[in-house]
Amino acid sequence: MELNVDSNNTEIKNLLNRYEDFLTQQVYPLEMEAIYGSFKSTLPKLQELRKKAINEGLFAPHLSPSEGGLGLSLQEFGRISEILGKSPLGHYVFNCQAPDIGNMELMHRFASKELKEKYLSPLQKGEIRSCFAMTEPENAGSNPVHLSTTAVRVGDDYIINGHKWFTSSADGAAFTIVMAVTDPQHPNPYQRASMILVPLDNPGYQFVRNIPIMGDVGEDYMSHAEVKFVDCRVPASNLIGESGQGFALAQERLGPGRIHHCMRWIGICERAIEVMCKRALSRMLDPGRPLAQQQTIQNWIAESVASVKASRLMVLATAKKIDEEGAKAAKEDISTIKFFVSDVLMKTLDRAIQVHGALGITDDTLLSFWYRHERGARIYDGPDEVHKTVLAKRILKQYAAK
Amino acid sequence: MELNVDSNNTEIKNLLNRYEDFLTQQVYPLEMEAIYGSFKSTLPKLQELRKKAINEGLFAPHLSPSEGGLGLSLQEFGRISEILGKSPLGHYVFNCQAPDIGNMELMHRFASKELKEKYLSPLQKGEIRSCFAMTEPENAGSNPVHLSTTAVRVGDDYIINGHKWFTSSADGAAFTIVMAVTDPQHPNPYQRASMILVPLDNPGYQFVRNIPIMGDVGEDYMSHAEVKFVDCRVPASNLIGESGQGFALAQERLGPGRIHHCMRWIGICERAIEVMCKRALSRMLDPGRPLAQQQTIQNWIAESVASVKASRLMVLATAKKIDEEGAKAAKEDISTIKFFVSDVLMKTLDRAIQVHGALGITDDTLLSFWYRHERGARIYDGPDEVHKTVLAKRILKQYAAK
Amino acid sequence: MELNVDSNNTEIKNLLNRYEDFLTQQVYPLEMEAIYGSFKSTLPKLQELRKKAINEGLFAPHLSPSEGGLGLSLQEFGRISEILGKSPLGHYVFNCQAPDIGNMELMHRFASKELKEKYLSPLQKGEIRSCFAMTEPENAGSNPVHLSTTAVRVGDDYIINGHKWFTSSADGAAFTIVMAVTDPQHPNPYQRASMILVPLDNPGYQFVRNIPIMGDVGEDYMSHAEVKFVDCRVPASNLIGESGQGFALAQERLGPGRIHHCMRWIGICERAIEVMCKRALSRMLDPGRPLAQQQTIQNWIAESVASVKASRLMVLATAKKIDEEGAKAAKEDISTIKFFVSDVLMKTLDRAIQVHGALGITDDTLLSFWYRHERGARIYDGPDEVHKTVLAKRILKQYAAK
Amino acid sequence: MELNVDSNNTEIKNLLNRYEDFLTQQVYPLEMEAIYGSFKSTLPKLQELRKKAINEGLFAPHLSPSEGGLGLSLQEFGRISEILGKSPLGHYVFNCQAPDIGNMELMHRFASKELKEKYLSPLQKGEIRSCFAMTEPENAGSNPVHLSTTAVRVGDDYIINGHKWFTSSADGAAFTIVMAVTDPQHPNPYQRASMILVPLDNPGYQFVRNIPIMGDVGEDYMSHAEVKFVDCRVPASNLIGESGQGFALAQERLGPGRIHHCMRWIGICERAIEVMCKRALSRMLDPGRPLAQQQTIQNWIAESVASVKASRLMVLATAKKIDEEGAKAAKEDISTIKFFVSDVLMKTLDRAIQVHGALGITDDTLLSFWYRHERGARIYDGPDEVHKTVLAKRILKQYAAK
Repeated sequence: MELNVDSNNTEIKNLLNRYEDFLTQQVYPLEMEAIYGSFKSTLPKLQELRKKAINEGLFAPHLSPSEGGLGLSLQEFGRISEILGKSPLGHYVFNCQAPDIGNMELMHRFASKELKEKYLSPLQKGEIRSCFAMTEPENAGSNPVHLSTTAVRVGDDYIINGHKWFTSSADGAAFTIVMAVTDPQHPNPYQRASMILVPLDNPGYQFVRNIPIMGDVGEDYMSHAEVKFVDCRVPASNLIGESGQGFALAQERLGPGRIHHCMRWIGICERAIEVMCKRALSRMLDPGRPLAQQQTIQNWIAESVASVKASRLMVLATAKKIDEEGAKAAKEDISTIKFFVSDVLMKTLDRAIQVHGALGITDDTLLSFWYRHERGARIYDGPDEVHKTVLAKRILKQYAAK
Repeated sequence: MELNVDSNNTEIKNLLNRYEDFLTQQVYPLEMEAIYGSFKSTLPKLQELRKKAINEGLFAPHLSPSEGGLGLSLQEFGRISEILGKSPLGHYVFNCQAPDIGNMELMHRFASKELKEKYLSPLQKGEIRSCFAMTEPENAGSNPVHLSTTAVRVGDDYIINGHKWFTSSADGAAFTIVMAVTDPQHPNPYQRASMILVPLDNPGYQFVRNIPIMGDVGEDYMSHAEVKFVDCRVPASNLIGESGQGFALAQERLGPGRIHHCMRWIGICERAIEVMCKRALSRMLDPGRPLAQQQTIQNWIAESVASVKASRLMVLATAKKIDEEGAKAAKEDISTIKFFVSDVLMKTLDRAIQVHGALGITDDTLLSFWYRHERGARIYDGPDEVHKTVLAKRILKQYAAK
Repeated sequence: MELNVDSNNTEIKNLLNRYEDFLTQQVYPLEMEAIYGSFKSTLPKLQELRKKAINEGLFAPHLSPSEGGLGLSLQEFGRISEILGKSPLGHYVFNCQAPDIGNMELMHRFASKELKEKYLSPLQKGEIRSCFAMTEPENAGSNPVHLSTTAVRVGDDYIINGHKWFTSSADGAAFTIVMAVTDPQHPNPYQRASMILVPLDNPGYQFVRNIPIMGDVGEDYMSHAEVKFVDCRVPASNLIGESGQGFALAQERLGPGRIHHCMRWIGICERAIEVMCKRALSRMLDPGRPLAQQQTIQNWIAESVASVKASRLMVLATAKKIDEEGAKAAKEDISTIKFFVSDVLMKTLDRAIQVHGALGITDDTLLSFWYRHERGARIYDGPDEVHKTVLAKRILKQYAAK
Repeated sequence: MELNVDSNNTEIKNLLNRYEDFLTQQVYPLEMEAIYGSFKSTLPKLQELRKKAINEGLFAPHLSPSEGGLGLSLQEFGRISEILGKSPLGHYVFNCQAPDIGNMELMHRFASKELKEKYLSPLQKGEIRSCFAMTEPENAGSNPVHLSTTAVRVGDDYIINGHKWFTSSADGAAFTIVMAVTDPQHPNPYQRASMILVPLDNPGYQFVRNIPIMGDVGEDYMSHAEVKFVDCRVPASNLIGESGQGFALAQERLGPGRIHHCMRWIGICERAIEVMCKRALSRMLDPGRPLAQQQTIQNWIAESVASVKASRLMVLATAKKIDEEGAKAAKEDISTIKFFVSDVLMKTLDRAIQVHGALGITDDTLLSFWYRHERGARIYDGPDEVHKTVLAKRILKQYAAK
């Protein structure tokens, strides 16, 4: 299947409509229960939805047809991802949620055949979940060369020791990929670390806690863990890629990861604009005088719509560039959308809350969930400030050369 | 005691230092437990602190000496309130927390002798708590003339029916003051409602739920309830002030209430700046290179400090005006600080979070609590947008007259 | 010639490079003289450049090949226009400057054969200039239905009376198109006005003054006039389109006009970023420590680059929509780019000035010219506030219908 | 005379009213002529006003009574200065305009008796004007230690060589104070320069040009010159203060200078709010529907009023601190108001322009003048970015010590 996102292609329109329909009819009704109730106890219903998604040929749209997916370009997937982002459950239902989607891409390209069979295959089918252990509480995430976690080669094994947090979705996951220093003396600090797969039933792995984030301790997929590795021994063959390639692979993993987040954020914005408009039309200041007549509200709607439109075009243009030239060539584009869209996201959510008044700060709408859980968007995957510096230096370089 | 806040008066300095010391030594250590653990189970420890406060002559600073307080002007109280605001527990420990402080002021001025003896006296001593039932889910708070709750006079009683929410701290309170329409036909819509005291053991009062706000359902004092009044019968003598005076009294109550909030917000900002600076100094990008050296971080600190300073001066100037000319004369000043300071508050918190990186969105700091629970600051007591309009119309009027 | 702006088409790249080269080598050197010296005395040199442009097949790129142009789509022209916008002289040299380009489009579609031969033909060749008289000092431009200028039909003539300003480039123009009320009683206020061509040698036309704009009285093409029509008699055949069609035609004229402005603004932004980067690299805080190392400067560069990129994508997407579906279908897109890009423009210029320090406010750079003369961007062609309202109402309508 | 600016003192109120009346009745009518016409040819009328000011006892309010002034504290002068700032001619008429006021303060404290008699005395009487030559085109003003101008001691003379610009009001001035390196080898770079008075009839002084600033070349007092010193020989006794004290004195001069600017900026803001409100009330969107009814306009008015109020309180609090503790103690307060108020100024002017629509960008109002000539406010006397860093470092130091 080839979807031309730039044209008025009816095939993509149909596909997008099918996702939209699935989402509004099947997924929306489960949101409040899964988000504000118990995610864990909603799992059976979500499992049902996954089966439906498989039956309707909508499951795992990011995978190639041979792996059970739709074989889409990143641009095409972007359009779908935007729709899925309209619900906090969207990506999960179709098995293209972070951090699993990132691990799938990573392992698809760099894992050994054995690791693929044992871990990637059930992951792609949605039978297991995974996580990614990189961030450490003691070291600034904005300068990743400082890592305290080590993996020492002893015979055919690695022995891993370290302390990680923001290991999202570790609770209930089957394995993690851990970033650890394997060659601490390497002259290039970017070649000191490696990525190693660790099954979570390993006795050297310790689950410390789900970190309470903005009032939510979370559970299962919807959680962010603090974990420890204490003399955690795994076979050296659990290495992903080559030894010392950790940062290079992280870059490979994070590039598309950032674009996935941006796509999802745009979906959130669209939903926020939707509820903002509906509220503005239904909330009466006086009988027959809806909030929507206030010019301030109109300004917020216009500014949100404009900036979300700008975001979408930039994200799709970046996806196109990645499709055509690869993630490396799009490095500065990815940095650009990271900080541009996260800002648009938070401003749009903020306006939607303000339009809702007191209701907006309650857990009676999704806005409170996103306002809290997406505040991290400006921090994770590199704080916005770092991405601005990256972009500026790149631009300045062009003029320095002249 | 007379505290001259404008001078370098040593008396006030000493008093402020005593509050500051009490807060940092006695109150700060209880914060995480009370805020992120269980407020209810921390109550005994808080009760201990209240006793200490009484013993040290620091309790209820807003009350007159005959009522057990310090007899301060609003300016003087403002300086103390700012210090108390640095902890989410500050005002509670000294029994000057909203909504009780507002009810104390209101009853002090407008309640009958009997109501004062029965309800105000134990409230001032911190033996009971109270709440205030005004906002209704069905009507826009930004235009308060629309109220659905009614109180019908039947003999010597009022029979109250209505639905309220954001009745803060109803959980565990002894009584509420409810805003209800008593004269629906009055030609002036601002003279249709009255304020009536309702003991919460009244069988016509129904506690529906503590509303989950930004991920917290809360409990006891730290909660916001949805409640109902169903044929709730109370003696007509429970009326506060005169019949039809509801909005006039609400204005009297909200004016100082807004200034209390602003003072507290400034305290929060100071604490946020404190932790922002400490984090910036201790978090290393590389060994010996703290985050504090980044110009972006410096900009945030400078902008926060400047705007908090501006806020403090405006709030104290408003307090002075209220002290000297009364709350009515300061109406537009109060509107001004309401929207100005709430904006400064949210921006300062946002910057403090960003400086903390991933830690900033966890419940391992107070920032997450304030980021979530003070988002309402731009909404409650009149959304900022309404206050801007109020101010602008007042200013325009001056020029229209010319 | 067909230029596919979305592809890596080498044909368009070559064309863009040719314009870029022409601009930097031939046009840039004349800027300071024409902008801060005398435009009029620079005219002979500009005339030379126009000849070169004709010889190199670059003249009037917006026209069809039969009219001497390149037969481009709006998207294709957009890319070129962006390059031309990098110089205040760019569009003029290639005869695609406002207001002439708008009049060319309008007359091409709606003028009689006679008017085309007499006025449009020499206009397209760059032999004469024109202007457009719509805005009136006494009536708010943001609500165009209020017009005081009248054109009364007397026999075969119209007699026009009225007062206009911001009639850009009237000084030295050969004719104007004037918007006047022809049917004041028409029940639909949008069908009361017509567009009539008035040669400026008509004795009823009075040139009042070139309005000093932000310190510049201007002259010739670079000016904005106040003019009067006093019993100004022209043949009824000078009508453009039908009687009563004034607003409909204005809409037709302004839609593309707005997109032309946006394209030009992006060019200005690019030049501003260029000089901002160069200045940041060359200005030393200490020997070897350029301004470019300051994180604040880096933030400004990054934010400018990101928002300009967003602007370009939105403008090109709008051009595409106009190419494919017509200007009417793109109405809300045009409103969106109008307020989005004008804001980006002014912010980018402001940052570029700040990076230049004292030099930035002198007339030793182009920044002062643009800072002053583009401040109008947020006002002309409908103030941004009106466009926000237009967009918001359109969006709200979609939800109201649901 | 003692004016208590904090009280409802009637004496100060009367004085302020007298200045306000003088300004609106005598000064406002000359503005358009002096600002957009010729300042030079308006001089005789301005001279008349100065005589009136002397007669009414309002001249030179900043000076001590023995010097012909009112003997005000900085706080008191601040209130007056704010009123004078409402007109671009205000400070000039009362002889308290920059840069002369700065030179008066400097010479009053640090000049020899001879220099005072010869230069300060006529300056205070308004008989001559002066200027201050510090900024150099080749060196970044944000790091003042880099100065290329030198003054070499030869016998009893200094021989000065150097290139300066932004020597404001040099055109028509009688003398300048020039900042020059006298001890280039001093280990402390802040002790290398000195301040030397140079009469402008000195043959070694070369007036290069009035720099065109934002479209205005200016003339006489209203100008900013580029000048050169070529083997310019002056007696060593023209030294102000001690040799090597240049930076220390500059700090002494700039501290109050910054507060003078801030006071003036607040006056500009007040005038801008005044015209913004009047325009909003008089401009009709439809008959009977003034612009003032638009919520966006109301927001702008409210935000302007609030931030100007905050600015005034901060500036007066800083003046109080300088009065009580000296300029050095108030260093960070001065940095704070510098960047806070300049930002408020530019935003307020921008809003006022937008409310005026097309009229706002013409030279038919004062807004265009201020928009252009106050853009420098964020640059001169230290760019805002430098002041933010100064403030942040000071704040961080407090926490580093803990």
